[in-house]
Amino acid sequence: MKATALYRKYLTKMQKIADVKYASAVLQWDQETYLPVKGQSIRGQQIATLSELAHREFTDKKLGALLLQLQEADALSDREKRNVQLSLEDYEKNKKFTGAFVRKMSEAVNTSFHAWMRARKQNDFSLFQQPLDKLIQLKKQEAEILGYPQQPYDALLNDHDKGLSTARVDELFGELIPKLSKLMEQVQKMPAPDTRFLTQYFNKETQWKFGIEMLKRIHYDFEAGRQDISAHPFTTNFNAGDVRITTRIDEHDFMNMTWSCLHEGGHALYEQGLPESEYGLPLGEYASISIHESQSRLWENCIGRSLPFWEQYFPLLCSYFPEQFKGVSLAQFYAAINCIQPSLIRTEADELSYHFHVLIRFEIEKMLIAGTISTKDIPACWNELYHKHLGINVPDDNQGCLQDVHWSHGSFGYFPTYSLGSLYATQWHAALNRENASFEKLVAAGDTSFILTWLRQQIFPFGRYYDSNALCQKATGEKLDSNYFIQYATKKLDSFITS
Amino acid sequence: MKATALYRKYLTKMQKIADVKYASAVLQWDQETYLPVKGQSIRGQQIATLSELAHREFTDKKLGALLLQLQEADALSDREKRNVQLSLEDYEKNKKFTGAFVRKMSEAVNTSFHAWMRARKQNDFSLFQQPLDKLIQLKKQEAEILGYPQQPYDALLNDHDKGLSTARVDELFGELIPKLSKLMEQVQKMPAPDTRFLTQYFNKETQWKFGIEMLKRIHYDFEAGRQDISAHPFTTNFNAGDVRITTRIDEHDFMNMTWSCLHEGGHALYEQGLPESEYGLPLGEYASISIHESQSRLWENCIGRSLPFWEQYFPLLCSYFPEQFKGVSLAQFYAAINCIQPSLIRTEADELSYHFHVLIRFEIEKMLIAGTISTKDIPACWNELYHKHLGINVPDDNQGCLQDVHWSHGSFGYFPTYSLGSLYATQWHAALNRENASFEKLVAAGDTSFILTWLRQQIFPFGRYYDSNALCQKATGEKLDSNYFIQYATKKLDSFITS
Repeated sequence: MKATALYRKYLTKMQKIADVKYASAVLQWDQETYLPVKGQSIRGQQIATLSELAHREFTDKKLGALLLQLQEADALSDREKRNVQLSLEDYEKNKKFTGAFVRKMSEAVNTSFHAWMRARKQNDFSLFQQPLDKLIQLKKQEAEILGYPQQPYDALLNDHDKGLSTARVDELFGELIPKLSKLMEQVQKMPAPDTRFLTQYFNKETQWKFGIEMLKRIHYDFEAGRQDISAHPFTTNFNAGDVRITTRIDEHDFMNMTWSCLHEGGHALYEQGLPESEYGLPLGEYASISIHESQSRLWENCIGRSLPFWEQYFPLLCSYFPEQFKGVSLAQFYAAINCIQPSLIRTEADELSYHFHVLIRFEIEKMLIAGTISTKDIPACWNELYHKHLGINVPDDNQGCLQDVHWSHGSFGYFPTYSLGSLYATQWHAALNRENASFEKLVAAGDTSFILTWLRQQIFPFGRYYDSNALCQKATGEKLDSNYFIQYATKKLDSFITS
Repeated sequence: MKATALYRKYLTKMQKIADVKYASAVLQWDQETYLPVKGQSIRGQQIATLSELAHREFTDKKLGALLLQLQEADALSDREKRNVQLSLEDYEKNKKFTGAFVRKMSEAVNTSFHAWMRARKQNDFSLFQQPLDKLIQLKKQEAEILGYPQQPYDALLNDHDKGLSTARVDELFGELIPKLSKLMEQVQKMPAPDTRFLTQYFNKETQWKFGIEMLKRIHYDFEAGRQDISAHPFTTNFNAGDVRITTRIDEHDFMNMTWSCLHEGGHALYEQGLPESEYGLPLGEYASISIHESQSRLWENCIGRSLPFWEQYFPLLCSYFPEQFKGVSLAQFYAAINCIQPSLIRTEADELSYHFHVLIRFEIEKMLIAGTISTKDIPACWNELYHKHLGINVPDDNQGCLQDVHWSHGSFGYFPTYSLGSLYATQWHAALNRENASFEKLVAAGDTSFILTWLRQQIFPFGRYYDSNALCQKATGEKLDSNYFIQYATKKLDSFITS
């Protein structure tokens, strides 16, 4: 068979696997948005069946043979070769896991997730400890199965961001944290902004309309997606022509919906911009979780919490909520939405202290996987680190080590990508500023299309062609450098002093 | 292996097939309700992949062997045996079709459907003729593959209602139509009711609320389903705990939404009432399309167009639309919603003339499958029959033989189930009246729960255990008798004369 015919066969196979995978994603989206109560139990089973089918198709020996054949083919384009190479890596990775191991892991996650829910209800970590411990033992096994260059935790990091290592995250935090600590000290000396006007009553329907308006203006394509309401905001995609986001609305907290729209909107612009023609193939997929997060953070923070952005949007916002913002100046608004204040909950943290939340989780995960602490030590360890890094006392487990769902899902090595995403975002932001002298003027005039154009040239078309590192190098001419975040944060602090 | 272990294995296999089938149904529901425009093309492919997977699983030889083993097992309960027997029938039926034939049929349907859409746009049947002709040739082949007792058309009827034959439909229409013609003549002599108040402006949101209120009152369970908007109303189910309906709202036609709610609500009550424990098995499925239609017609017509029903709901309706129904009496309203008038469009036809629309399609289908007419004769034949049976002239193809989507989907032998559904509905209605002397009083007091209780005893728990005939015999003590419809229609006409 000719290379082109073989490639077509591979494409068809991969697209069918994608069809099943995305069908499962539709069922999950429905579960979070519209599923009636009594449909919940069987829905779990339906999703599990689809996952099993997709896994079975993707570990089919015939696919493996086809990929090996294609690897030897010469007549393929550069992009086609890369697809084949990445699919082969994925295939070999999947093949490492026996069906029994996959089942054991999925059962452990299920048990652990429900234990976490119970523990949250009782505000008592001890109810979560044993199932979590079992899950961690399995994650250690997973690391051994996957293999790693230096330490088991590398394998887990790699699962979310290929090529990432414990040493590299250590290095980044090593550079970032001391400088960030100094900035935080500086903030403590500044007068705290008044934020009370952000927690007045904001009518649900009006908030919804404002959110939709912002999404349209940053060019989220409503013909290739939609927004709905769910308990926890998320982005999901079924192909580049159908990328959906959700939000939640708190009528007593204006911040909640607004920045969730911009955050998920950022994720969605990425998915809507991935090459449609690569549907089902690696080059049709996002580069890494870190890069995905860099997209949401760019729009949520670098753009969505900037002064120029609100020069454009604050008058619009005032037209939606004239009463609530009566007498509030743009400078006051800008200061309030950027209020920096160490706090207990990661998801509500400001841009700066956010990294400390991640650092704490990263430190604990490393110790858990290395076995230098055990699960029963988590609460004490957590509380100690929050006191050390953020200077605050954790009053109970719900506001402490039970706050995130991630560990109950078996997501270890995931948290660092949140910080990396933030760092990448400020590096894109710096590159964009370098290349556009009128960056701030354009944003203040409501024009963000040049940003999207840059992303559509530098990030989106490559899918998984480059890993995070190579993509960063290509887009900005340098590897990831945490100094961009420090420069960004310093500039922001200066803007308060002068504003 | 013991029979119970074998049965469990069978159950697991069937439930997985059901998971895939219902996942596909979720994707279809989403397609009709919330899918963004640019997601449409790949959605079709995703649905096709799931159908292919479900078909592959259900024609797996291992399933066949398991079923044969189970057929020999003694230790099964009566219901278990029936499940096995029906699954084996389904399996053997599916096995008759080669993959190539299934693909050819699906391609022909696809071509034919799009040709129908084009023909509708141009109002020109000739654009649809050739693809339809190809499809009909395939349907003839399908009939040969399936086999039949007397004539090929029997095989197609059987596909929607097991045991139904051309002779039986001929017999039923033979009894029904002459009597119905006499009733129609009688109607012509009566003064036409004023229906103009039904086509005033009815605000969308208020209509929606009224529809939801009615659905709640007839005990549609909103915890096991939901209503959304779509272009064409339909009912779909993903398990008994998740049965969804859709409606459409015309702000200038009150009839449109109201009776679509009751119609789909009737279908949904049936699906919500099927035994949950039989998920994935034949006894968890509806008996036949005719029986399904009997449920929608019972609620839409026998109950939803009755005087007692509106004794309860008309005051409620007036509270929703006080302006629109000012000065309209219950008697006037009742006469208007039951206006009998031969018309061109089946879906807008009254209860009586509806059967003539079905008869015409049935006659044409018989001739097409028997080969006594060819597709190019359809328009002339259609127009002649409309003139003969309903005394009206068909002005163009869109209002004539292009009005229904069914043929373009390859649904031949389907239309008769609409009439059979109506007939069954009036037979249930008669049985309910016999068993409840206070039927009308209860309905007038807003109590329809005794009707649902009866259905939950006589129809729902059996799933596919009985075919339509046996179910009717069991529930009413008689086989289907069209005289119940005539009695029902006569009584309704009398009620106008006396009201």
